[in-house]
Amino acid sequence: MAEPVTVAVDANGADLGPREVAAAAAIAAARGTRVLLFGPAAELGDVPDGVRVVDAPVSIAKAPDPVAAVRSTPEASIVRAARAVGAGEADALVCGGATGAAVAAGVFNIKRARGVYRPALALPLPIPGAPILLLDVGANVEVRPEHLVQFAFMGAAFGRAVLGLDRPRVALLSNGEEPTRGTPDLVEAHEEIAARAAGVSDLDFVGNVEGTQVTEGAADVVVTDGFTGNVALKLIEGVSGTVLRAIRDVATSSARGKVGGALLRPALRGLRDQIDPEGPGGAYLLGLRRIGVVHHGRFTRYGISQAIAVAERGVRERAVERTLAVLEAAGALRRSVSASPASVSTPS
Amino acid sequence: MAEPVTVAVDANGADLGPREVAAAAAIAAARGTRVLLFGPAAELGDVPDGVRVVDAPVSIAKAPDPVAAVRSTPEASIVRAARAVGAGEADALVCGGATGAAVAAGVFNIKRARGVYRPALALPLPIPGAPILLLDVGANVEVRPEHLVQFAFMGAAFGRAVLGLDRPRVALLSNGEEPTRGTPDLVEAHEEIAARAAGVSDLDFVGNVEGTQVTEGAADVVVTDGFTGNVALKLIEGVSGTVLRAIRDVATSSARGKVGGALLRPALRGLRDQIDPEGPGGAYLLGLRRIGVVHHGRFTRYGISQAIAVAERGVRERAVERTLAVLEAAGALRRSVSASPASVSTPS
Repeated sequence: MAEPVTVAVDANGADLGPREVAAAAAIAAARGTRVLLFGPAAELGDVPDGVRVVDAPVSIAKAPDPVAAVRSTPEASIVRAARAVGAGEADALVCGGATGAAVAAGVFNIKRARGVYRPALALPLPIPGAPILLLDVGANVEVRPEHLVQFAFMGAAFGRAVLGLDRPRVALLSNGEEPTRGTPDLVEAHEEIAARAAGVSDLDFVGNVEGTQVTEGAADVVVTDGFTGNVALKLIEGVSGTVLRAIRDVATSSARGKVGGALLRPALRGLRDQIDPEGPGGAYLLGLRRIGVVHHGRFTRYGISQAIAVAERGVRERAVERTLAVLEAAGALRRSVSASPASVSTPS
Repeated sequence: MAEPVTVAVDANGADLGPREVAAAAAIAAARGTRVLLFGPAAELGDVPDGVRVVDAPVSIAKAPDPVAAVRSTPEASIVRAARAVGAGEADALVCGGATGAAVAAGVFNIKRARGVYRPALALPLPIPGAPILLLDVGANVEVRPEHLVQFAFMGAAFGRAVLGLDRPRVALLSNGEEPTRGTPDLVEAHEEIAARAAGVSDLDFVGNVEGTQVTEGAADVVVTDGFTGNVALKLIEGVSGTVLRAIRDVATSSARGKVGGALLRPALRGLRDQIDPEGPGGAYLLGLRRIGVVHHGRFTRYGISQAIAVAERGVRERAVERTLAVLEAAGALRRSVSASPASVSTPS
């Protein structure tokens, strides 16, 4: 049997409270994952074999400035969980709530993988019939072209290693399909990705996609900056919710509509399961030395246990190593700083 | 009775062909609008009183590079229509299809209004229960903070003059509600708008909105750069279409669902009318010396006649003059170049 994987989990990031996270840890433990659970031991209740509680009662889940809180609160449960991963006591990190805190805790304690400029948050969107992995959804509000280039290969490598995508179709999100559309930075990234993707077989770069194509299955991995990605994912959430509400409203506005709605309900339940955001476990923090998965604060034990399962799969499938191998094959790794020490020590 | 308004209309921008545009012109003429119709006279058929055909058979509607085509094709119908507006032969422009061509034809021939940095395309989104005006949706892929500041006041002034919004709530689209969220340019624009809006009663600046809030009625006018705006509007189109299709698919996947769907259909038809994009007539080209309205290429005569009606309303309500007055009251007009000739003639 394979060596068990240990996942460090922050118990303080769920709206339903630390006990819900403990329940998720128990589900994961029953599947054979070892969980290091960082949270208020007094509130966590009994845990089964396979879950070890580390008493870490300090929570920064509600801090107004999560990044500052990560810096100033080394005893916070999320920081301690990330530190355990950085120190090799656990193989991957699972936390929830504010993604800013997750990114900061990861960057400071797990550290960026060698040759990666910036970590990215990749969110799997369970679009019916055409799921996509969207990145970056908020780790980097401003990016340079070389960051977008890395995101493309990082997203593709993760999709291949963990999400079962054979040769992911990767696209850049833009305001038109032509390679010349978009900001100058985006056009430059497009050229770079096209040139570098030609040399690797791990992905199929399909160019630009527009907003309409995001939900139409035009690509498996959609790459953008963290500002546009964050706006996009929240628009997708907002618009789908609004359309579903509008339909429910018309369905309940007449007797005839009510009967129709009732007849449709079982079929709609299947659709709802298909687009359940808890299924994919949350957003994936890519580009660090180990995998991180950030579940939504409102997830239940099911979604959080899925986050732990994805983290474990990332470890077993060696997602970090395979990502770096793809970046290297594409010539997209940052050139080593140590190769030119003068640029570090001498102000120019 | 008020002086009739003359609208210059390009007949070559509709997917259904020039005759559909001629039919729209006839609808507008029946309402008392004068239409100068630029298109292939031989294909336009008979037109009623109030419509004057100007034979302009050259179309650049399918040109691969619309902006280049506008520059290189002075005889194109869209360019001639815009020129007629610039020369004062018509009071407003209506055209369809590629917005790039519309913006270029407008900027070159109608010219920017004095003190306006950049024109913007504002699109009314018929979200059920919470319609919004989104700008810029594609005229400017890259913007500076002062452009966003002008867009905020331009959108609000147009909403007030033409769309019947009393004191529009104006917001910036960002990746978080806090004023510090977003790119540095966006944060700067936020500060500027907040400071300048305090001095004018024409709008209520409500700060940042996230993607989820766009469809929730948090603002009447949502301001962003043309890249993000274009991605956003196409996402809204794509996601709403995908959700409706998914529901139709489950409704037709079982006998029970089919009966339910049939019972719901009449109520859904009402919803469809409410969100019909043809109702608001298309996107509004703001910041020129006269009003422009750009209908979607796939619009029918109904939507195109709505575009003409909005253009006429803009003229009657003196939207351009009122926009400039608001920009002036807010201190948001570009400082006149002629006021400091040294800065033009002397390189610094």
